[in-house]
Amino acid sequence: MKSLMLTDIGSLAVVPRGPISGRRMAEIEFIRNAALVIDGGRIAWFGRAQEQPGSFAGQRLSARGGTVLPGLIDCHTHIPFCGDRRGEFVRRIAGESYLSIMQAGGGIRVTTNAVRAASLDGLVEASLPRLARMLALGVTTVECKSGYGLSPEHELKQLRAVRELAARQPIELIPTYLGAHALPAEFENRAADFLAAIADAGLLKQIADERLARFIDVFCDRGAFDVQQARRVLLAGANAGLKAKVHADELAQIGASRLAGELRAVSADHLETIDEDGLESLKSGGVVAVVLPGTSFFLGIHHADARRIMNADVPLALATDCNPGSSHIESLPLVLNIACCQLRLRPSEALAAATANAAAAIDAADRIGAIAIGHQADLTVLDAVDIDDWMYSPGRNRTAMVIKSGRVVFSQT
Amino acid sequence: MKSLMLTDIGSLAVVPRGPISGRRMAEIEFIRNAALVIDGGRIAWFGRAQEQPGSFAGQRLSARGGTVLPGLIDCHTHIPFCGDRRGEFVRRIAGESYLSIMQAGGGIRVTTNAVRAASLDGLVEASLPRLARMLALGVTTVECKSGYGLSPEHELKQLRAVRELAARQPIELIPTYLGAHALPAEFENRAADFLAAIADAGLLKQIADERLARFIDVFCDRGAFDVQQARRVLLAGANAGLKAKVHADELAQIGASRLAGELRAVSADHLETIDEDGLESLKSGGVVAVVLPGTSFFLGIHHADARRIMNADVPLALATDCNPGSSHIESLPLVLNIACCQLRLRPSEALAAATANAAAAIDAADRIGAIAIGHQADLTVLDAVDIDDWMYSPGRNRTAMVIKSGRVVFSQT
Repeated sequence: MKSLMLTDIGSLAVVPRGPISGRRMAEIEFIRNAALVIDGGRIAWFGRAQEQPGSFAGQRLSARGGTVLPGLIDCHTHIPFCGDRRGEFVRRIAGESYLSIMQAGGGIRVTTNAVRAASLDGLVEASLPRLARMLALGVTTVECKSGYGLSPEHELKQLRAVRELAARQPIELIPTYLGAHALPAEFENRAADFLAAIADAGLLKQIADERLARFIDVFCDRGAFDVQQARRVLLAGANAGLKAKVHADELAQIGASRLAGELRAVSADHLETIDEDGLESLKSGGVVAVVLPGTSFFLGIHHADARRIMNADVPLALATDCNPGSSHIESLPLVLNIACCQLRLRPSEALAAATANAAAAIDAADRIGAIAIGHQADLTVLDAVDIDDWMYSPGRNRTAMVIKSGRVVFSQT
Repeated sequence: MKSLMLTDIGSLAVVPRGPISGRRMAEIEFIRNAALVIDGGRIAWFGRAQEQPGSFAGQRLSARGGTVLPGLIDCHTHIPFCGDRRGEFVRRIAGESYLSIMQAGGGIRVTTNAVRAASLDGLVEASLPRLARMLALGVTTVECKSGYGLSPEHELKQLRAVRELAARQPIELIPTYLGAHALPAEFENRAADFLAAIADAGLLKQIADERLARFIDVFCDRGAFDVQQARRVLLAGANAGLKAKVHADELAQIGASRLAGELRAVSADHLETIDEDGLESLKSGGVVAVVLPGTSFFLGIHHADARRIMNADVPLALATDCNPGSSHIESLPLVLNIACCQLRLRPSEALAAATANAAAAIDAADRIGAIAIGHQADLTVLDAVDIDDWMYSPGRNRTAMVIKSGRVVFSQT
């Protein structure tokens, strides 16, 4: 792979390697009039343009005075899925409760039926345009959860669809096995049997051996799985080599974030109802807190208290939670706008949350999410003077160019 | 102008002529598998595709199974402006008060300085890309307020920039004179002198005679102009033939919406603090209530109670309030997403608010904002199965094609 110099960078966001927490999230350094050299798909040099290596003989590419960031990382999505639940969206707006919608045959089971009915190719075809739109928004890495199949066969199909999707488009996909997402209809009142099937040692070994997933996740909440059930699933996953993630403290405080800390999970996600014990547990367990403001926006409910998490010195990441029920939002930049305008995150904090800390939330902070020598050259070039300009324009796509591992994979016409 | 048939319409939103209020906003009729005939730039026929006039001999254009709406109308913006206030945006996020920002030289006066320093051409050039982006979002008509010049010379320059902008791109622009937007620094403690200059009978006559504005607007609120001052300005405008609009009940309840009703204003805008008297006054005065959820989103404050306004049977319109200080949002679809997700408007209510009622808010409901025979053929074609699908995907631009007065003015590549 040839070397490439990105020139005429108006503002280079020198995001440090994650995880970063507390005030450091607001203290990102920016280099004005910068350049960056890519060699072998990795960042080989960056600095002030006037100090660029004189010996450089490769290709030059102009950033046209724009802002350059580490490629955005969406560290929590439920892609791949198919089908939609727009009818449910409108019924919820009209005041119908989630419970009543569930009882009328709505909710996650609708998506489970659609995913079970779909072929692997069907799942891939439904997801490709979604990923193409995410790429055009500056996203270079996406975490993808299974969890709609809810049987070994269909969970494996979802994970294999992720593998196929990874091969067919430029965004890097990080697969997570979320077999314990919900109790499917056929296991009503038989949670133990369901968990035995979904957290079967042989199945988990297969998933790990075939590298179909790097993480195992559980929806540990009121109405989903309790702490004891979640612990058992996550320990079984750990036994097979899958690192833990937890859907925690969304609907009720049942101790899910404490479990995440206890198990030293890679991330605890949602956290609308986290308490002091939970925060301390995340901190002592080295867990990244993933907040999902698109979900609270989409559902019209209160946001997680991101500032409190940052004040507790827990590294904060932000993600879309893209899914057909509670956050039908593909745009990570929109989620960052929500975080700035409604959760009052500074643009630099939002940026750190969607790069360095999002990388840490998928255990990849050693190679992506930062502008650092030797890091993978995943870069998003914005048609914006600086990141304040970027975040100050909600709803406007400022992505001019996207570079993945040193290769230009998107360019605004 | 040749006749044109729009074929293969998956869902045609038959929005009735505005203003529409109460439950009628939720009761929009949709025709599946529809067609629409345009003749002389106007809607000549629409209905089920199978009932299309057999004699039609003009051009046919496929909507590719998408959804067709009346072109979206942004009935409250502060375009044209120049300069930006992103620094202020970040300081506000960090907790600084608007008052402190003002005292440090920030706020509206920054924009006034920028607009005064700009030439007419400079204002036009700064606004053209903004309008091009709005067009690509399906917007066919935009109301444009002056109000940053704050002197006869610079207010006239802003209004002439609107005229120039109208000639140079496809969106129809509806100019409003907002001379009484804020007290400029040189008139500190001399509001009466300022209003005498800005509401001078000769100036207003010139604005009306040269058709530089159709409406006169006043920011009637705490910290701006009081009801008595606003009444005097609006009556002077009426005397010159300019219809009234009022920035009302945003910061405090000082009776601004009652004034709007009393004067039978075309619209009262903002309304975060409207009370029962204000609602009754709007209703009896035939005033359209314009709510601006992008502003409350951008500022991170509570939204106006749109449902209460609808329950009071006052026609509700929605707009972006696009401006550099309190709503740097160009996307009317994003504002509708905020209205659906956070203000709990049904997609049909949001649609009515951005078409029929937005047309009524600029006194143009007799010719735009509806799918009705004889109406101007302003149409937005969405790559969406129906309007629920459209509103269910916040942050995603679904605009496939835009037609203005029967002519295709935007097409997604």
